[in-house]
Amino acid sequence: MAEAPPRMRWWGWGDPAHPPVLPAHALSFLEETVGLGEHKRPPVALENVHLPAPGLPAEALARLRGLLGAGNVRDDHAERVLHAAGKGYPDLVRLRAGEPDGAPDAVLYPDSHEQAQAVLELCAEASIAVVPFGGGTSVVGGVAPLRGAHRGVIALELARMGAVLGLDRRSATVAVQGGIRAPALERALAGEGLTLGHFPQSFEYVSLGGCAATRSAGQASTGYGAIEEMVLGLRTATPAGEIALAPVPATAAGPGLRQLLVGSEGTLGVITELALRVRLAPAERVYEGAFFSDFAAGQAALRELAQEHALPVLARLSDEQETRMSLALAGSGGLVDRAGRAYLSLRGYRPGCLAILGFEGEAGEAHLRRSRARAAIKRNGGIVIGRGAGESWRRGRFTAPYLRDELLTHGVMVETLETATQWSKLDALHTSVTAAIDGALRACGTPGLSMCHVSHVYETGASLYFTLIARQREGEEIEQWRAVKAAAGDAILAGGGTITHHHAVGRDHMPWLEREIGGVGAGALRALKQELDPAGIMNPGKLLSSAG
Amino acid sequence: MAEAPPRMRWWGWGDPAHPPVLPAHALSFLEETVGLGEHKRPPVALENVHLPAPGLPAEALARLRGLLGAGNVRDDHAERVLHAAGKGYPDLVRLRAGEPDGAPDAVLYPDSHEQAQAVLELCAEASIAVVPFGGGTSVVGGVAPLRGAHRGVIALELARMGAVLGLDRRSATVAVQGGIRAPALERALAGEGLTLGHFPQSFEYVSLGGCAATRSAGQASTGYGAIEEMVLGLRTATPAGEIALAPVPATAAGPGLRQLLVGSEGTLGVITELALRVRLAPAERVYEGAFFSDFAAGQAALRELAQEHALPVLARLSDEQETRMSLALAGSGGLVDRAGRAYLSLRGYRPGCLAILGFEGEAGEAHLRRSRARAAIKRNGGIVIGRGAGESWRRGRFTAPYLRDELLTHGVMVETLETATQWSKLDALHTSVTAAIDGALRACGTPGLSMCHVSHVYETGASLYFTLIARQREGEEIEQWRAVKAAAGDAILAGGGTITHHHAVGRDHMPWLEREIGGVGAGALRALKQELDPAGIMNPGKLLSSAG
Repeated sequence: MAEAPPRMRWWGWGDPAHPPVLPAHALSFLEETVGLGEHKRPPVALENVHLPAPGLPAEALARLRGLLGAGNVRDDHAERVLHAAGKGYPDLVRLRAGEPDGAPDAVLYPDSHEQAQAVLELCAEASIAVVPFGGGTSVVGGVAPLRGAHRGVIALELARMGAVLGLDRRSATVAVQGGIRAPALERALAGEGLTLGHFPQSFEYVSLGGCAATRSAGQASTGYGAIEEMVLGLRTATPAGEIALAPVPATAAGPGLRQLLVGSEGTLGVITELALRVRLAPAERVYEGAFFSDFAAGQAALRELAQEHALPVLARLSDEQETRMSLALAGSGGLVDRAGRAYLSLRGYRPGCLAILGFEGEAGEAHLRRSRARAAIKRNGGIVIGRGAGESWRRGRFTAPYLRDELLTHGVMVETLETATQWSKLDALHTSVTAAIDGALRACGTPGLSMCHVSHVYETGASLYFTLIARQREGEEIEQWRAVKAAAGDAILAGGGTITHHHAVGRDHMPWLEREIGGVGAGALRALKQELDPAGIMNPGKLLSSAG
Repeated sequence: MAEAPPRMRWWGWGDPAHPPVLPAHALSFLEETVGLGEHKRPPVALENVHLPAPGLPAEALARLRGLLGAGNVRDDHAERVLHAAGKGYPDLVRLRAGEPDGAPDAVLYPDSHEQAQAVLELCAEASIAVVPFGGGTSVVGGVAPLRGAHRGVIALELARMGAVLGLDRRSATVAVQGGIRAPALERALAGEGLTLGHFPQSFEYVSLGGCAATRSAGQASTGYGAIEEMVLGLRTATPAGEIALAPVPATAAGPGLRQLLVGSEGTLGVITELALRVRLAPAERVYEGAFFSDFAAGQAALRELAQEHALPVLARLSDEQETRMSLALAGSGGLVDRAGRAYLSLRGYRPGCLAILGFEGEAGEAHLRRSRARAAIKRNGGIVIGRGAGESWRRGRFTAPYLRDELLTHGVMVETLETATQWSKLDALHTSVTAAIDGALRACGTPGLSMCHVSHVYETGASLYFTLIARQREGEEIEQWRAVKAAAGDAILAGGGTITHHHAVGRDHMPWLEREIGGVGAGALRALKQELDPAGIMNPGKLLSSAG
C-alpha cells in the first residue's frame, strides 16, 4: 500500500507546521542591502482566493466520476487552490494575492495505469486539457492549469499512485508507480539497505514520475547521476495508448525512446510506472567545506576531479557573492564561526569561495575520494575547513524554499535559475548572466543581490545555479520578474548555455527552448506530440507552443 | 586535413593485404565438429559481380555532379560494389557469390555539412533514396542499398568528411566530422595524450558518425561508456533542414533530442558533425585472464564489481562452450598453455569459464581496480590466470571478422547476435537463446556450435553476445541464416532482452524492434520520420517499416 503523501501550504512551500527559518540578523542585512517592502504582505486567507467557477461539462464530469468513483473527482475550493499552480516565484506571488492564474475545473485521483489511461482517452474525446500533477513542485510553470482551446482542464493528481511495485535486488532495480514521493521511496529502500540517491531541493515533496518527466537532478547527482541515468524502464499513458519500455540496462534498438519520454513534461502523456536503478546505501557519509581564493580556482579543482573520475557525490562551489551572502545569513555559529572567518580573511580568502563537498560510499571509497579531493584543493590553493560547514549545509539543504516564503512576506523577491555549459565557457557565462541579472534589476529600479554556485559537475562542463534577491516592485511583481528572467535567458543562450540544467522548461522557458533546439528540432517534437496527443490535451501551453 | 580512410576487401572484412588467420588445427577441429563444405568456396572475381545498371535520372545525376563536382559522384563498377552491402553474414554470402542485393546507382562524396544538406534536399526533390555510408561495417543490413518506392538510390559516402574540427582540451571535448574513422581520431588524440576509448570489434574501419547513428558500444565501453554517453553535441542534416545541438554536459531542456538522433540509423538524417567527450590516455593498461568454475560464478563476480562501482574498463566472460572453443582454437601457445590447462582441469575448471578483464587508467586507479576485481573473483571461487590470456585476447581483439571470411571459404557459417537484460533474467536468457539457436540449426539439418559471452556489464544487468558456427546449407544459406536469426530474436524478446545491445536494428532486426517498443512507440518514431523526412528518402527499409 502506498502511504498518503504530505500536503503543502497552498500559498507557499512545505509543511504547514514548519517554524520560521529567517533569522533577524539576515532580515536586517537584507533591509540594508536590497530593502524590504513598505509593509508586510502575508498571503490572503484560503477562502478569499478567487477561482473561476468549475466549468467541466456535466456529462464529462459524470463519466469521470463513473470511472474513478465520485470521491476521486474533486472540485471543492481547497482542492482546486492546491492544484492551481506550482511553486515558482510568479505562482507564489499570484497565490498569496489570492489571484492564481486559473485553476483546474476538477482534480482527478486515478489509482493505476489503467485508470490514468482511461482518463486520458475520455478527456481526449471530451476536449478536456489534462495537467499531470505529481509533487506539484515545478518552479517553471510546469503544472499551470492552462486549458488551451479546450472546454475544461483537470489536474491528474498522482497521489494515489505511490506504490512500490517490486524490488529486484539482484538487478538493483525498483519498480514504482509514478506518483511515489521521494521520501517514501527512500524509506522503503532504506529498509533494504538501499538508496535511490536522488535529492533535489524539493526532495520532501517531489514525485518520481515528476522527476522523470522534468529531467530532475538532485544535490548528489554528481555522484548518483541525474534522474535520466536512473530511469531504466517506463510505462507511459498517452492519449494514443500505452508505451511500455522494459528496464534493460542498455539497448541499441533505435532512437532513445526512454530519453524522449524523460523530459516530456506531461505534454506527451503521464509516466505511470517506472523502473529505477538503486544503489547500496552508503556506509559512510562525510560532508565538508573548503575555501578557495576565487571562483576560478575552485572551478579548476572541480574540473580536475571530474576529469580524473574522482568527484565527490556532491560538489557545490559558491562564487564570491554567494559566499559573502552565505556567511552573512548564517551568522554566528553558522557555516564558519567568527574566529574561522578572521582566519580565512587573514589567509587572503576575502571573501573567497566556499565549496561544499559530499563523500558517500563504502568507507574505503569515501576515504579515497576525500584524499583525491584534498590534493586537488591544495593544488589549486584552497583549504579544507572541515565538517562543520558541510554538516551545516546538510542540515539546511531543503530549507531555501521556506526562506523564500518568509522573504515574500517582507516584500522581497527571491528567484533562482540555472544552466550548464562546457568548462571552457563557464567563466564567461557566469560573468555575462550575472551582469544580465544585475542590469535587469537595476533597470527595474530595484538593484539587488545576485549570486551563483556550481551545482553539478561533469567531465566536460558544469552547471551554474543563480539566485537573485531584490525588493519587489509592488503591483508589478510579475513584470519585474519577467524582465529579469528574459535578460538571464537571453544571456544564457548567448553564452552557450542550455536554458535549463534541471528545472525543466514548463511555461517559463518555452521561448528559449525553441531557440536552443532550433526550428527543425522543435518541429520534430511537435510531430511527436501530434502523434501521441492528436487532440492536444496533454499539458497545453508547456514545453513548446502548439504552433510552429 | 582529413586523411583518406582505408578501403576494405569488397567481398569481406578488412585489409586486402591481411594474412590468413585460421590455424590448421582449428580447421580440423571444425571439420570434426560441424563439418566443412564439400568444396572450397572462394569469392567470385570483382568483374563477375552482377549489378543492376546504374539508373539515376540523367537530370538528377547532372545536378548532383554540379553540386559536388563530377569526381565526387561515382558510378563505376568497383565503387558500386564497395557500397552494395555492409558486412553482415547475408551480405557476405551474397557478395562472395557475385549476387549482391542491389547496389547504389551512384556513390556521392560530399565534403561538408553544407554539401550533405544540399544532397539530401536535391534527393528529396528528385525522389532518390539516400543511404548514409560511414565505415560500411553494419552487420544488420544497415547500409543495404534499398530504394523503396524511389527512382534511384545513392550511397552518401562520408569518406571526405573525416576532419577533426577542434579540440577543447579544457572541456575534454573534440569536435569532428561524422566520417572520421576511429583509428584516425585515436591517432589525433594520442598526440595530445587523450583517447576517446571507443573500440568496437570494427574499430579499424568504423566512422564516428556511424557509431553514433547505431548506438555503438566498444570492447572497453564498460569503462568508457558506449557512444551515446560520449556524444555531447550533434549536427545533423535532415531533408527538413539542420538540427544542431550544442555540446552541453547535461540539460533538462525537454525530451532528449540528442538521444533521438543517436540510434536513428540514417533514417532521419545524416550526422555530419559531432562533439565527443574525450579522456586522458591511460597511464597503465593491464589485461588479464581469470577462470571461474561456471558461468553463474563469473556473472556473480562481475555483478558485484558493477554494483560496487569497481569494474574494469573491459569485462568479458565466456560461457563454458565459448571457453572450450577459445582454448581449442587458440591451440598451443594461445590463451592458456598445455600445462596451464592441465592445472585448471585439476582444480575443477573443466571447461570452466574464461574471463578477460582490462584495467586502464592512472597507475593507482588501475591497481586499485585490480585488487577489487581479485577480491570479487576469489569470493566467487575464481582464479586469476595472469596477463598471458589478457594480452593474447588483446592481440586478437579485431581479428574475428577475418576468421569469418576464411570459414566462409570452407563452407562454414559464422554469425553473431547480442542482447542485454537485467541480472535477474540473464541466466534464463542465456539458456533459452542458446537452446533456440541450437534447435534452429538442428532443424536446418546443420547442428552447430553456439557459444556466448557477457560483453558489457552494468549495475543493473549485462549484455550477452552469442556466436554460432555451422556448416552452410549450400544454395540455402540465406534461408538457413534467417531461420536461426528468427529463433534467436524470438527467444530474446520472450526472455526479456532487447533485440540489440550494440549491433543496431538495420534491416535484420526490424520486426523485433516493433515488438520491443510497441505499436504506440513505433508510431511515435514514424511520426518523427514523417516530419524530418517527408519524402521517405532516408535509408528506406531500415529501423521501421514505413507502414504502421
